[in-house]
Amino acid sequence: MINQINADSKLVTLIARIEKTILSTGNNGSNYLILNLVDMSGRIEARLWNSTDKDSEELKNGEIVKIEAATNVYRQQLQLKVNSYEIIKEEDFAKHDIKEEMFSISAPINVDNNYEKLIDFIESIKNDIYRTLTLSIIKQYEVEFKTYPAAVSIHHNVIGGLFWHSYSLLMGAKAIKDVYKYAEIDWELVYCGAILHDIGKVIEMDGKNASEYTDEGRLLGHISIGNTFVSNKAIELGYKDSREVLKLQHVILSSHGKNEYGSPVEPNLIEGVIISSLDAMDARIYKINDELAKVEKGAWTGRILSEEGRSYLNHYDKKESN
Amino acid sequence: MINQINADSKLVTLIARIEKTILSTGNNGSNYLILNLVDMSGRIEARLWNSTDKDSEELKNGEIVKIEAATNVYRQQLQLKVNSYEIIKEEDFAKHDIKEEMFSISAPINVDNNYEKLIDFIESIKNDIYRTLTLSIIKQYEVEFKTYPAAVSIHHNVIGGLFWHSYSLLMGAKAIKDVYKYAEIDWELVYCGAILHDIGKVIEMDGKNASEYTDEGRLLGHISIGNTFVSNKAIELGYKDSREVLKLQHVILSSHGKNEYGSPVEPNLIEGVIISSLDAMDARIYKINDELAKVEKGAWTGRILSEEGRSYLNHYDKKESN
Amino acid sequence: MINQINADSKLVTLIARIEKTILSTGNNGSNYLILNLVDMSGRIEARLWNSTDKDSEELKNGEIVKIEAATNVYRQQLQLKVNSYEIIKEEDFAKHDIKEEMFSISAPINVDNNYEKLIDFIESIKNDIYRTLTLSIIKQYEVEFKTYPAAVSIHHNVIGGLFWHSYSLLMGAKAIKDVYKYAEIDWELVYCGAILHDIGKVIEMDGKNASEYTDEGRLLGHISIGNTFVSNKAIELGYKDSREVLKLQHVILSSHGKNEYGSPVEPNLIEGVIISSLDAMDARIYKINDELAKVEKGAWTGRILSEEGRSYLNHYDKKESN
Amino acid sequence: MINQINADSKLVTLIARIEKTILSTGNNGSNYLILNLVDMSGRIEARLWNSTDKDSEELKNGEIVKIEAATNVYRQQLQLKVNSYEIIKEEDFAKHDIKEEMFSISAPINVDNNYEKLIDFIESIKNDIYRTLTLSIIKQYEVEFKTYPAAVSIHHNVIGGLFWHSYSLLMGAKAIKDVYKYAEIDWELVYCGAILHDIGKVIEMDGKNASEYTDEGRLLGHISIGNTFVSNKAIELGYKDSREVLKLQHVILSSHGKNEYGSPVEPNLIEGVIISSLDAMDARIYKINDELAKVEKGAWTGRILSEEGRSYLNHYDKKESN
Amino acid sequence: MINQINADSKLVTLIARIEKTILSTGNNGSNYLILNLVDMSGRIEARLWNSTDKDSEELKNGEIVKIEAATNVYRQQLQLKVNSYEIIKEEDFAKHDIKEEMFSISAPINVDNNYEKLIDFIESIKNDIYRTLTLSIIKQYEVEFKTYPAAVSIHHNVIGGLFWHSYSLLMGAKAIKDVYKYAEIDWELVYCGAILHDIGKVIEMDGKNASEYTDEGRLLGHISIGNTFVSNKAIELGYKDSREVLKLQHVILSSHGKNEYGSPVEPNLIEGVIISSLDAMDARIYKINDELAKVEKGAWTGRILSEEGRSYLNHYDKKESN
Amino acid sequence: MINQINADSKLVTLIARIEKTILSTGNNGSNYLILNLVDMSGRIEARLWNSTDKDSEELKNGEIVKIEAATNVYRQQLQLKVNSYEIIKEEDFAKHDIKEEMFSISAPINVDNNYEKLIDFIESIKNDIYRTLTLSIIKQYEVEFKTYPAAVSIHHNVIGGLFWHSYSLLMGAKAIKDVYKYAEIDWELVYCGAILHDIGKVIEMDGKNASEYTDEGRLLGHISIGNTFVSNKAIELGYKDSREVLKLQHVILSSHGKNEYGSPVEPNLIEGVIISSLDAMDARIYKINDELAKVEKGAWTGRILSEEGRSYLNHYDKKESN
Repeated sequence: MINQINADSKLVTLIARIEKTILSTGNNGSNYLILNLVDMSGRIEARLWNSTDKDSEELKNGEIVKIEAATNVYRQQLQLKVNSYEIIKEEDFAKHDIKEEMFSISAPINVDNNYEKLIDFIESIKNDIYRTLTLSIIKQYEVEFKTYPAAVSIHHNVIGGLFWHSYSLLMGAKAIKDVYKYAEIDWELVYCGAILHDIGKVIEMDGKNASEYTDEGRLLGHISIGNTFVSNKAIELGYKDSREVLKLQHVILSSHGKNEYGSPVEPNLIEGVIISSLDAMDARIYKINDELAKVEKGAWTGRILSEEGRSYLNHYDKKESN
Repeated sequence: MINQINADSKLVTLIARIEKTILSTGNNGSNYLILNLVDMSGRIEARLWNSTDKDSEELKNGEIVKIEAATNVYRQQLQLKVNSYEIIKEEDFAKHDIKEEMFSISAPINVDNNYEKLIDFIESIKNDIYRTLTLSIIKQYEVEFKTYPAAVSIHHNVIGGLFWHSYSLLMGAKAIKDVYKYAEIDWELVYCGAILHDIGKVIEMDGKNASEYTDEGRLLGHISIGNTFVSNKAIELGYKDSREVLKLQHVILSSHGKNEYGSPVEPNLIEGVIISSLDAMDARIYKINDELAKVEKGAWTGRILSEEGRSYLNHYDKKESN
Repeated sequence: MINQINADSKLVTLIARIEKTILSTGNNGSNYLILNLVDMSGRIEARLWNSTDKDSEELKNGEIVKIEAATNVYRQQLQLKVNSYEIIKEEDFAKHDIKEEMFSISAPINVDNNYEKLIDFIESIKNDIYRTLTLSIIKQYEVEFKTYPAAVSIHHNVIGGLFWHSYSLLMGAKAIKDVYKYAEIDWELVYCGAILHDIGKVIEMDGKNASEYTDEGRLLGHISIGNTFVSNKAIELGYKDSREVLKLQHVILSSHGKNEYGSPVEPNLIEGVIISSLDAMDARIYKINDELAKVEKGAWTGRILSEEGRSYLNHYDKKESN
Repeated sequence: MINQINADSKLVTLIARIEKTILSTGNNGSNYLILNLVDMSGRIEARLWNSTDKDSEELKNGEIVKIEAATNVYRQQLQLKVNSYEIIKEEDFAKHDIKEEMFSISAPINVDNNYEKLIDFIESIKNDIYRTLTLSIIKQYEVEFKTYPAAVSIHHNVIGGLFWHSYSLLMGAKAIKDVYKYAEIDWELVYCGAILHDIGKVIEMDGKNASEYTDEGRLLGHISIGNTFVSNKAIELGYKDSREVLKLQHVILSSHGKNEYGSPVEPNLIEGVIISSLDAMDARIYKINDELAKVEKGAWTGRILSEEGRSYLNHYDKKESN
Repeated sequence: MINQINADSKLVTLIARIEKTILSTGNNGSNYLILNLVDMSGRIEARLWNSTDKDSEELKNGEIVKIEAATNVYRQQLQLKVNSYEIIKEEDFAKHDIKEEMFSISAPINVDNNYEKLIDFIESIKNDIYRTLTLSIIKQYEVEFKTYPAAVSIHHNVIGGLFWHSYSLLMGAKAIKDVYKYAEIDWELVYCGAILHDIGKVIEMDGKNASEYTDEGRLLGHISIGNTFVSNKAIELGYKDSREVLKLQHVILSSHGKNEYGSPVEPNLIEGVIISSLDAMDARIYKINDELAKVEKGAWTGRILSEEGRSYLNHYDKKESN
Repeated sequence: MINQINADSKLVTLIARIEKTILSTGNNGSNYLILNLVDMSGRIEARLWNSTDKDSEELKNGEIVKIEAATNVYRQQLQLKVNSYEIIKEEDFAKHDIKEEMFSISAPINVDNNYEKLIDFIESIKNDIYRTLTLSIIKQYEVEFKTYPAAVSIHHNVIGGLFWHSYSLLMGAKAIKDVYKYAEIDWELVYCGAILHDIGKVIEMDGKNASEYTDEGRLLGHISIGNTFVSNKAIELGYKDSREVLKLQHVILSSHGKNEYGSPVEPNLIEGVIISSLDAMDARIYKINDELAKVEKGAWTGRILSEEGRSYLNHYDKKESN
């Protein structure tokens, strides 16, 4: 598996899924293929030098490929140099003792169990409109909500990442409620907003193994898609002119916190401030932790784009400290 | 009428509508009222010094008031100092020989005639989805579209201003089409986008004499409201998954041109670039021309907020030059 | 008490502390005094028109004053117009049945109890250096830490505000720990950073009833003051070259999150990201809630400077909803 | 011709002009040359691998070269890999049946005809100073004005591009005049400003096949060069202290709209707002359309630098739609 | 004299020049005049309450006025309340024993002497073109250059301020030359650039007692005016195509250092970096020192606009320290 | 020596120190090493193609290496292609007739002499606290202060660069004192601030041949390190509560001039404005001059990152002009 490969591996045999293939031209004029490979344990980049047209045709996004490769360290990142490869068709999975689900990273939580808990939680919400709207939207997109990633690369880019991220926000919101009992906060609005704030991603992303955004996603954005989900569903359910619908729409629209980050309106409800704060913090913790995991203790991560190029120091090891 | 009052008027008698009343406390501790007055010829500010609670109760937004006042020039702007006043109730309009429509500024175009032309134009659009969507949305909000202003204060803040601004964009787009015949531009998308880009203002503003935005307007913004109009109508008409719907939504969402100006997505269609460029230019020309009209030739306007505080020089008089 | 005064009060008698006196000149050329008054129930602004030099001399910051005043509403904020006043000296407190502590707003938590809990918590921290440093700094500034506000006006500007804010961060951090158990986070660093991040304010503010920053505060800033606290204490305790000292310094220095917000370094440890995120969220919730409390349900707050001028809608009433 | 080459061409023979040669070192340590080639039908990049010093000497900017090359697709852009080449000297043009004008892209309008129309139009301007100044400056730089590009790469980078862009602005301004007949606008100032706003580029660019800016262009900028053209010419013609000269200078100086875009003054005349709006829109439409032409319908352009990195979707085909 | 008035003065008699009169309306509805007064010792603001039209007519910019007034302290700034006044016409100056030059603040250096030194210095410059251009421009505008202020309010707003500021830059440049002898710097270009960088202000300002900018100044800006001075003079002297002219133009155009500060080009010569650095530092030192002089030792200045609102602490007294 | 190598050198033999080695993978899949080489005359980049693991092990940062190499010009920068190499161990230095100090660039001033002058100057400062603090801090870090560079790459990145830069600031400050004798400036504070403003770099950098920042440097920054130096030393010397300590800390903390450049406080003392102005100018002159030296007269430098990407024109040659 990918996470077992290290700089000392020298020659490895690996079966993995191609997340993305990029055809490139070397500075010597010959072509090569960059293969972003993934299995359930992690991701790694492989390169096939001096590739032919036939290679390009065979090594397509989504294929399961078995490669013989040499390890290589480039800018402190492990890479593979492909010596030979073989595409494994679905009909031969049994022969190789593999299954499709072995080739995607999944959120490290039990999505099905937690989804049940989420539904139970929504059903316990007292406000009829919040509860009914949230429940019916989530149920309509249940499959996508449970499997899609939360982003192509910025954060939670794993199967179930969208659910994981949304559920983390809900857990975070519930956790801090006690700290702010002095304040007038409509926590049910916070909770439903946390659950729904990114729901538009079920249209914005192109599938559970999303490696690109859809045209609809690029032209509308998940914020506006989510907003029309609520608007359309409210009409369907006869809630059109209710204030609760308006508030739910607002906390989705304002969830990026600022116009410049893509929110058409900035928070004007205190609940929107809480949602956008938790959203940003959750995405940042995921991403930084993910990058820290790629370097050794004592080393610095590469420049993280979503952190305005900052690097972070890996200074701590949970196991060591316990 | 308001536009006949000048610094030499000394004492004037005026019947006007109160657009907005602001209660304030003078530095001597007594209250006074700032009255924003309007009639069909223009706007003027009046102040009632040492006002009582009874004055505050009577001089409410929307009332028609007859005042005796002295003129005053403050920071190069004409003001009125109210000596006495009388509220004129609707039942007494006849007695004073006045009609409601005498107390609002209207767009200087024949809205009804031009609306007919607009409908004819929309009906001539070849693309079925663009045509049907645009037509049915405009017709659904016909009354508001024809009477609402385009903004509370930034631009086209007159009765019919929303129509006037939208129609100007359409006229501008049609005018420049020939200059860009070399380019691949979907002009029907430009036209429908120009017509619909601000349609959400029929919910965002609080009426044809709008002096404030509605809560719904502040929490959602006209861009997102307009987007749901298209989305809802597309479902109603059975166009849900069509690319044309997507494109119309995009040019509405991107009509402010940049995230920081409140567009959740920035233009990714060339048609969106044209609409947002014409939109900005049209609003700026209106506003600057409006401010220039307030000062004499050779003088500078006050700092215009929507122009990042720039002042403009009144250097030209059409009549003089002909 | 101040929170019992409302627009219908007409004439009121009030004993309060003068937080700040501002001498101003009215547009009629006479002087007047703006008095920011406070008692344990809230704050209110009063004005003494046509004030004399003697008034200015008597009505100084910090004095306890008894006033007869008329209520007035100015821009939706209640004000008082002082008709007569009397300074109450400390020796006469008993006569008026008042005590000093009746004239300051306090954090709505039991600071002493919670301080004990905080000390217990610190003592439970396993890392020797974190624990010892945090404990000895907090104990050195115990009095100020327990009584000072967290800011002059932006947030938690009440007696005990600094403790309240720091303790809220700690509570928030402990609350979300479970959500992020997948990540490699040194929670003891987060906790000690949360406790110490604003400790420099004990020098930056000029007292528990702080109405201004000290010169030292303005020239150094609480971030750099807090940093030297740790540095000096580490030398004193013989920890000078330890990595833990370095990390504690870093999370204090980076607690504003960005250079432009006054942090000399931006977070490079994941713990700094958590502290700065919770810090910003806590201050925002306090401030917005505070402003919402000043307006009725259904109304909008004034423009909040620390929220980049945004207004917030008071849409929710906890009591109503239960 | 270049626009006939496609991914299926495999091996091609091409005669083209070298717009720019860049010497580079491959990651294997050997040199190679990047050749930006152009003929009247388009542009293409070619690479000569393992180049020698002799290659560098021969393949200079401006040379006409005949190459045998293989096609290659790199990041969705067609490239050529040069197998062999031969420089064609001017004396051999006849032998190859080629002429110099076959190796530049020209504006897709008849520059000579339209130039005549422009001159006629200028001569019809009523204001003596506007007319005389504009006419004499344009005539002084007639050759450059008719042949220079409008920019090295941002927009209208073709022979006659400067004229094309300036003329488009004039056409656009004339087209929208009717929409703004309600406003006090000195249209003759708009027209002359549109014609002259980029005239400084005749010094800023290094020729009609400009591949670089001149030192004078980089040190002064076309805005300041154009400003001195007017100033110098006004002295020459005895108009030194006229207000019209001042206004013409202003609309040139403010034509970039904002200080940060290189205008030393921001618009303070309404005419400057119109010119800078049309200027930006015209350049953007050219550039986006140009990039859209490089990708197939349904595909997205690469990131466009002058559009702040945005990509655009090619969604429309004029021919299809008619 | 103005600088002898203090808070204890109570009633004063003062003869001063009116720099600027602002008519305002008090919150009690009556008018009042704000008079910015100046004599050779300083500036002070006076207010005439309940002013009449006759007062407005008499108290015009530029008049010499004798007032009886009471002192008043407003926001820590001394003000005067005018009880009575009398305009003193030029023919009565002798009677009051006053002269025009008693009513302007002058730069605290001997302008005439230093101007002679400056001319001598320019004449010693070796480069013919730098020397001749600088000399002939300075001589052409000698009177204005020696008397105009450097700005209306930002810095050096005194008679001779333009000369003082330009000369300070030259002195500063000469002083640091030795520190940078390791670098390749064309010091004669630095010197001439320092002398000429603000010369356009002789057109931009409206006189030696400038209280406003001219229309020409607002529409062109001193940077572009200065640039045309050099361009025009170069043509006159036959230097048109010389590189020295180009360089002089560049250091003037780039003297504000950045596009956003109004420079159409940013420095591309090391000499431009030195000039813009010294320019900014000189203006800042003047302004901050000027504001520090208005407050006592130990106090903070008001917010200084040109310092992005920062206040400065008056902490030092030269005399004390010697 | 490095500065004797030029494009015509073809084959060279060079002994140099490896400042930094970067392992990279070529697009043909094989590894290569980028070697940043330095000797006392300058810096040059060399590449070893097709490098092995053994090469990587031998060619480490800090080693002295003798190479046989071919010259190559890449993007107008000279490069070397290593044909063979040999590591020279310290024990063999004599054999090759080399000494360690031959492999570092040193500041072009006599550091030891000037350090003596600096100490003498500090000792002449009248204010006891300024003098004693500055002297004892400088002496404590004498070795580092005299040898460390001022930055890894931005400016003064040579042995003794920190001293050179600090001393230049002091020289500059002393030079301009006379120009500002009209102002109330505490020059002794300026001088000590100039000397100490970057002292924290003795911890921030990793040695006199610094090619990286230390962890402590990255987590605290030199500004905060320098601040604690003063704070700690003040406690040690018993100056804890003195105003002078506060002022010294302030000018160090504010030396970057703005929050966004990493100063936790912006200047609030006029002396801080002078220090930050001189600091920025000194660093810019060094860097621009350094880049200009890499290109020929008449050519432009590459884009300089610290100059926001601007290029500079090499237009002047001191020798030529004398």
